[in-house]
Amino acid sequence: MPEINGERVLADLRALKALAPYEGGVHRPTLSPEHVASLKWLAAELGAIGHETKLDGIANVFGISKAKGPKLLGGSHLESQNHAGWLDGPLGVVYALEAARAIAADPAFADCGVDVISCCDEEGHFGNFLGSRSSIGDVDEAAIDSAADRTTGTPLRRALAAAGLAGVPRHVLDPKRYVGFLEAHIEQGDWLEANDLKIGVVTKIVGIRQYLITTEGMQNHAGTTRMAIRRDAGVAAARIAVAISDHFPGIAGERTVWTMGRMAYDPGAPSVIPGGAELVLQMRDPENAVLDRLEVAAKEIVADADKSGPCRASIRQTRRTEPAAMAQNFMDAVRDAAEALVPGKHVDMPSGAGHDAMVFSAHMPAGMLFVPSIGGISHHWTENTSDADIVLGARVYLDAVARLLKAAR
Amino acid sequence: MPEINGERVLADLRALKALAPYEGGVHRPTLSPEHVASLKWLAAELGAIGHETKLDGIANVFGISKAKGPKLLGGSHLESQNHAGWLDGPLGVVYALEAARAIAADPAFADCGVDVISCCDEEGHFGNFLGSRSSIGDVDEAAIDSAADRTTGTPLRRALAAAGLAGVPRHVLDPKRYVGFLEAHIEQGDWLEANDLKIGVVTKIVGIRQYLITTEGMQNHAGTTRMAIRRDAGVAAARIAVAISDHFPGIAGERTVWTMGRMAYDPGAPSVIPGGAELVLQMRDPENAVLDRLEVAAKEIVADADKSGPCRASIRQTRRTEPAAMAQNFMDAVRDAAEALVPGKHVDMPSGAGHDAMVFSAHMPAGMLFVPSIGGISHHWTENTSDADIVLGARVYLDAVARLLKAAR
Repeated sequence: MPEINGERVLADLRALKALAPYEGGVHRPTLSPEHVASLKWLAAELGAIGHETKLDGIANVFGISKAKGPKLLGGSHLESQNHAGWLDGPLGVVYALEAARAIAADPAFADCGVDVISCCDEEGHFGNFLGSRSSIGDVDEAAIDSAADRTTGTPLRRALAAAGLAGVPRHVLDPKRYVGFLEAHIEQGDWLEANDLKIGVVTKIVGIRQYLITTEGMQNHAGTTRMAIRRDAGVAAARIAVAISDHFPGIAGERTVWTMGRMAYDPGAPSVIPGGAELVLQMRDPENAVLDRLEVAAKEIVADADKSGPCRASIRQTRRTEPAAMAQNFMDAVRDAAEALVPGKHVDMPSGAGHDAMVFSAHMPAGMLFVPSIGGISHHWTENTSDADIVLGARVYLDAVARLLKAAR
Repeated sequence: MPEINGERVLADLRALKALAPYEGGVHRPTLSPEHVASLKWLAAELGAIGHETKLDGIANVFGISKAKGPKLLGGSHLESQNHAGWLDGPLGVVYALEAARAIAADPAFADCGVDVISCCDEEGHFGNFLGSRSSIGDVDEAAIDSAADRTTGTPLRRALAAAGLAGVPRHVLDPKRYVGFLEAHIEQGDWLEANDLKIGVVTKIVGIRQYLITTEGMQNHAGTTRMAIRRDAGVAAARIAVAISDHFPGIAGERTVWTMGRMAYDPGAPSVIPGGAELVLQMRDPENAVLDRLEVAAKEIVADADKSGPCRASIRQTRRTEPAAMAQNFMDAVRDAAEALVPGKHVDMPSGAGHDAMVFSAHMPAGMLFVPSIGGISHHWTENTSDADIVLGARVYLDAVARLLKAAR
C-alpha cells in the first residue's frame, strides 16, 4: 500500500504558512504576492514528482499525472480569508500533493495517478468559486472583466496582470479523465471535536438561500410624534426577526442553520423614528425540501407582518446555492478508510460551508472528508488542528484515494 | 391694545427664508454664512425699533429695550437643522420681534418693553442649547473650546472666528430684569391639526432619557456553527426591542413616547453570526415619575435577557434632561389670549421636543405656545403652517405678552 510521510505533510503546511504569516495564522488574499508565491511553490513541488504543471490565466494551479490508467483529481485552494487560518484550503491541497507523491512512488500503482488542483479564489475575494468553475468551463471572459476585489476594489484583470498572468490561457479539465474529485478540509465547526471523532465523511454540501427582508414605515420626530400614529419600521423588523427565531426551530431539520447577520435601521438616529429597516436572513440545509419549508414559513411571517401593519414588509431572495450530494462510492471509500485507520471515530455529516467539491460534483463523482477544528474556530488566525489529526487525515485521504483508484481499474 | 401687522410677520419670515433657501425650506446650519446673515438681519430690524442690539461671542443676538417699566424676554432661534423647514425657530423670533415693535409703538405701553433674543444653536449642531445656556451664564470657555460641528467637524472656535466673533464677549442676561420668557414654536406634531385646534398652551417640556443597550454573544461562521451552541447577539437584541415594545404601552403615560432609533449588529455580515449588538432606547415624558417607571421596566427586561442567556445584556443611561414646567401665569396668559381670539380652539399640552424655554424656565418664569404643523412634519423642508395660522399665532403671542406686562405693572 502507498504511504504518506506525515512529517512531510506538516513541513509542507508550515512552508505555506511561512510564505504569508499573520499572527498565528496567515494573510493571503487572492492574487496577493503571498498567494502567487504559494502557487509557484505548489507548481514546483508538483513538477518535482514528474507532473506536468500549469499556472493558468485565472491563477489555478494544475499538476497533471502522466499515468495511463485511472486518475483521481484532488485539491482545494491556497488563498485565505483576510487575516485568517493556515489550514483552510492548504490542508486539502497538501493532502492531494502528498497523495500524488505516494501514488507516484508506489510501483503497485504505477498505472494510476493523482492530478492536483489549487482552485483560485474559493474564499470569494473576487467572485463565486471562479477558479473551480473556470476549470470545468463555467466562467466566461465577461465574468472576469467585471470582477473586482471586495476589500480593495482592484479589478481582477489588473490583479491577474500584476501576477504575470495577463493573456495566459485558462485550462479546462475533461471530467471524463477522472474517477472523481476528492477534497479534504478542516471542519470549521465543533462537531467532530465535541464528539471525540477524527474524520467527517461528507454526505452533502448544504444549499444556501439568502433573503433581504425590508420594512417600510414613516420617518418622524421621536419627541413630537404620538405613539398611536407611528409606523416604526425598526420595531416591525425586530418583530419579524423574533418571529423567525421562534418559529424556525419547530420546522427545521436536524442540521439546519439560519442566521440574521445584518439589521439596519434608516436613518438610524436616536431621536428619529426609523422610516425603513433591512434584515438579512440566510439559511442552510443539505435538503432542498427543508429549505423550501423554511422559505414558505419566512414568507408567511413577512406577509403576516405586512398585512397586520402598521408598516409594509417584503422579502426577496438574493442568493441561492443548490445542495450538492457527494458520490456514494466516494463516501464509502472515505468511510472505509477511516474505519480501517480509526475504527468508530468517524461520522457521516453534511458540510455547512461551501467548497470547490460542490462545483465539481455537478460534473464528476465528488467526495470530501473533514478533520477536527480545535474549538470549531475558522476564518480567524486562531484556527487550528492538532498535528496528529492533520497526519491522520492525510492517511485517511490517501487510503480513500487508493481504494477509489483500485476500484476503477 | 397693541396690534401686530400680519403682513409684516409673513414678510419677515419670507425674508429670513430667502437668506437660506433650500427646496421649499431652508438650509441654515449654525454659523453658516446664511445663519450669520440672518443674525445681522435681525440685529438691524431690532435697531430700527430703537433697541440696543448685540451680536455676542457665541452668536446670540439681543435686542434690549430702553423702557423703564416691566419687560418680557421673547425669542427662539434662527439656525435650522440641515435641509429643514423655514419656521422651526424663525417663527418664535419673528413673533418676539413683532411684539417688540407693537409694544414700542403703543403709547399705552410706553413704560413696557419686549427684549428679543435669538439663541444660537438650539438645533444642536455644536452642542446642547449652547446659546440660551450661555445667555444665563451656564456655559464656560472650556465647553466652547471642545465643541465641534457634528456634520463637518469644524471646531466651534473656528466657526465663530469665521463669523467675525473671535474675542467678542458673551452677553449674560439678568433674569430679574424680566417678567419672564415667552417662546412660540411650530408644534412639530399633528395634535392641533388632527383636533382642529389653533393654539397649544405648553404646560411642560418633556424630560428625555436615553439608554444604550448592548448584547454580547459569540461571533462565528453562519454555516458551520450548530444552532444549539450559538450565542447570537443580534437575536438577543431584537428580543429586547420587542419586549420593550410589548411592555411599555401598559405602563406608559398618556403622552409618553419611546423610540428605538438605532440598532446595529457586529460585524453585520450575512454569513457571520453577530457577536455583538447595540440598541438605543430613548423615552420622553413630562413626568419624572413616568420616566422612572419606564426606566425600571427597561432595566428589568435587560436583566432578564442577561440572566436567561445565552448572551450577556446590559443597559446604561447616556442622556438625561429633566422635564421643565412652564409658569402658571404664562400658561394662563397664553390660554386667555387664545380664548379671546379663537374661543375653544386651544388646548393645554406638553412639548415633546426640547426648546430654549426649557433652559430659561430654571431662571425665570417661562411659557410657550404652539401653532399647528401641517401633517405634523418637522425637520424636513416640507414643514409648513398656513399663513392664517401664522398670523393668528402672532396675535395670540402679542395678546399674551400684553397681559403679562400689564399684570406686572
